[in-house]
Amino acid sequence: MSHPPSVLIVGAGALGLVAAYTLQEYGGCDVTLIVKIGFEKACQNGYSFNSVQFGKFSGWKPRYLRESVHDTFHEYDYVIVSVKNLPDGPEPVEDIIRPVIERSPHSAVILFQNGLDIEKPLIEQFPGHVILSGVSLINCTNIDFVVNQMNEDSIQLGLFENPTIKDLAAAREQLGQFVRLYSIEGKNTVSLDDNVRLSRWKKLVYNASINTTTALVQMDVTRATIAGFKESLCRPIIEEIYAIAKADGYTIPPEMEDQMLNLSNGLYYKPSMCVDVDLGRMIEVETIVGNPLKLAKKYGVDAPRLDTIYHLLKMVQLRTMEKEGLIVLDQKNGVAKKNFAA
Amino acid sequence: MSHPPSVLIVGAGALGLVAAYTLQEYGGCDVTLIVKIGFEKACQNGYSFNSVQFGKFSGWKPRYLRESVHDTFHEYDYVIVSVKNLPDGPEPVEDIIRPVIERSPHSAVILFQNGLDIEKPLIEQFPGHVILSGVSLINCTNIDFVVNQMNEDSIQLGLFENPTIKDLAAAREQLGQFVRLYSIEGKNTVSLDDNVRLSRWKKLVYNASINTTTALVQMDVTRATIAGFKESLCRPIIEEIYAIAKADGYTIPPEMEDQMLNLSNGLYYKPSMCVDVDLGRMIEVETIVGNPLKLAKKYGVDAPRLDTIYHLLKMVQLRTMEKEGLIVLDQKNGVAKKNFAA
Repeated sequence: MSHPPSVLIVGAGALGLVAAYTLQEYGGCDVTLIVKIGFEKACQNGYSFNSVQFGKFSGWKPRYLRESVHDTFHEYDYVIVSVKNLPDGPEPVEDIIRPVIERSPHSAVILFQNGLDIEKPLIEQFPGHVILSGVSLINCTNIDFVVNQMNEDSIQLGLFENPTIKDLAAAREQLGQFVRLYSIEGKNTVSLDDNVRLSRWKKLVYNASINTTTALVQMDVTRATIAGFKESLCRPIIEEIYAIAKADGYTIPPEMEDQMLNLSNGLYYKPSMCVDVDLGRMIEVETIVGNPLKLAKKYGVDAPRLDTIYHLLKMVQLRTMEKEGLIVLDQKNGVAKKNFAA
Repeated sequence: MSHPPSVLIVGAGALGLVAAYTLQEYGGCDVTLIVKIGFEKACQNGYSFNSVQFGKFSGWKPRYLRESVHDTFHEYDYVIVSVKNLPDGPEPVEDIIRPVIERSPHSAVILFQNGLDIEKPLIEQFPGHVILSGVSLINCTNIDFVVNQMNEDSIQLGLFENPTIKDLAAAREQLGQFVRLYSIEGKNTVSLDDNVRLSRWKKLVYNASINTTTALVQMDVTRATIAGFKESLCRPIIEEIYAIAKADGYTIPPEMEDQMLNLSNGLYYKPSMCVDVDLGRMIEVETIVGNPLKLAKKYGVDAPRLDTIYHLLKMVQLRTMEKEGLIVLDQKNGVAKKNFAA
């Protein structure tokens, strides 16, 4: 590519904004950011950063701001997806990015999202399209246009296993170029992930246990730890995750358990799913719990605790969707009717 | 007894008030009611009833109102306990009734409470004392001094298994007398329960599944049913309850499962534990879930779902107790310190 690489970033959460800043200011990319909520305000005032990596400043904007993917008309080299992954909601990822993917057949999609098997709907809908995995370990929030970044960006990038890709060498080259664009020497850590699925299983150790249980009882990690949840809830759930991963052909290193359990030690910190429940937002229950459970069923692995957690969280999801008007309860027939087309 | 039987009722919830009215107005008893919250108001205005059984009226009072068991000085023939059973709280039942039990060695205690093994601490603390079980199927609320009774009172009364009782015939006679006092021909249904423990296992089919799961997600039964919780959560939990009961020597009739699952059909109704969570009150997690789980452990029965539910509810309990000032979190040492003596 001789022109500056063009990047569309879908989702103006903390992750999307750190990516936007990194790629525009260091990677020399032409960045377009989709801002669904607060678009006008973002256009007027931009974003403030309070970042261990980039410093403290305000009024920063990516080159282009758009309210929706439907407001973009160019071809992009990279499409970063940093919105929540909600296949049970009105806007599954494949629907959100379809317009831009159809227009950008040579782009690579990068999923900056948690969970397992999130590439599957995209491979099905966009066969042959390069899809990259981004597993981030950043500790960052974006509240009211202020990005607070507590530690350095650390991200693993790799290719999802994708049988529809014909030219694997070209796909690897696209991945390599993105890694170069994203890397800032001495400022962040970008590593090539040659086992994307294992990385995702590893991250599930945290997300399927600590994230889910604190979300159900709306409690920060320190309080939950005092309540004994690491031993009574997390370890037994993690045991199930290890067993499902093993049946799936992936051995999560044993030390990952304690590493993940101690990640938030001493912090009165609410994990993302817990914050989502507090704020009445939809949660990523399908990609974090539902998809691993489907595999458990497929492989005949017993996972009663994860199953219990899943169905409780699906009740929470129904509660949220009703409040948001996304579903209407039909009492007479005892069903929930979707208020959206998907 | 030649004097009118004297009854102390500890707990002015719906159950306690229906018992008070029944025993005073029909049973000819001398009733003293302990009203912990709203004592002054109860003394001034009494209670309103809106009852399918007794009609609609206001200003009713039991003969004596007291704010605490410590304000009573007489010997009683019967001590009805209709407060919540919270062994993990500041006032376990044995502590609440100790003053009156020590003063009334010949009284019978009647536990109008849910859960399993609730008699155990009382047998230990008051050996030889007659303890009766009351399992109620009444659908009734007491909100702001208004008793709403939606169906007729139906209660099973029986003797807890109690190896410390020496004169079983006399205990049976006390039970029989209480059944006669409580029975109102054509108005309520009082039956002799000759298998108290089985009755309690049966009621746990409802309480350990529907009560607990709706409490965790704070959702009424109709919404929860639409979310599919009967099949996804309740039946698997009930299966565990059946298995533990069986190991304990009790066969819950198979039809009980559907009977309990369909008990609240079509009602936008929140079970008691769910209401308690909504109102930030402590929940009966130990007697309804904790005690069956102890038996599961004792008998080596696998109960992973009930165990998961238990530990989630214990986190909810910690949250409530912290809010109520009953515990203080010691962040430095990672422990919860009780703010009460028990």
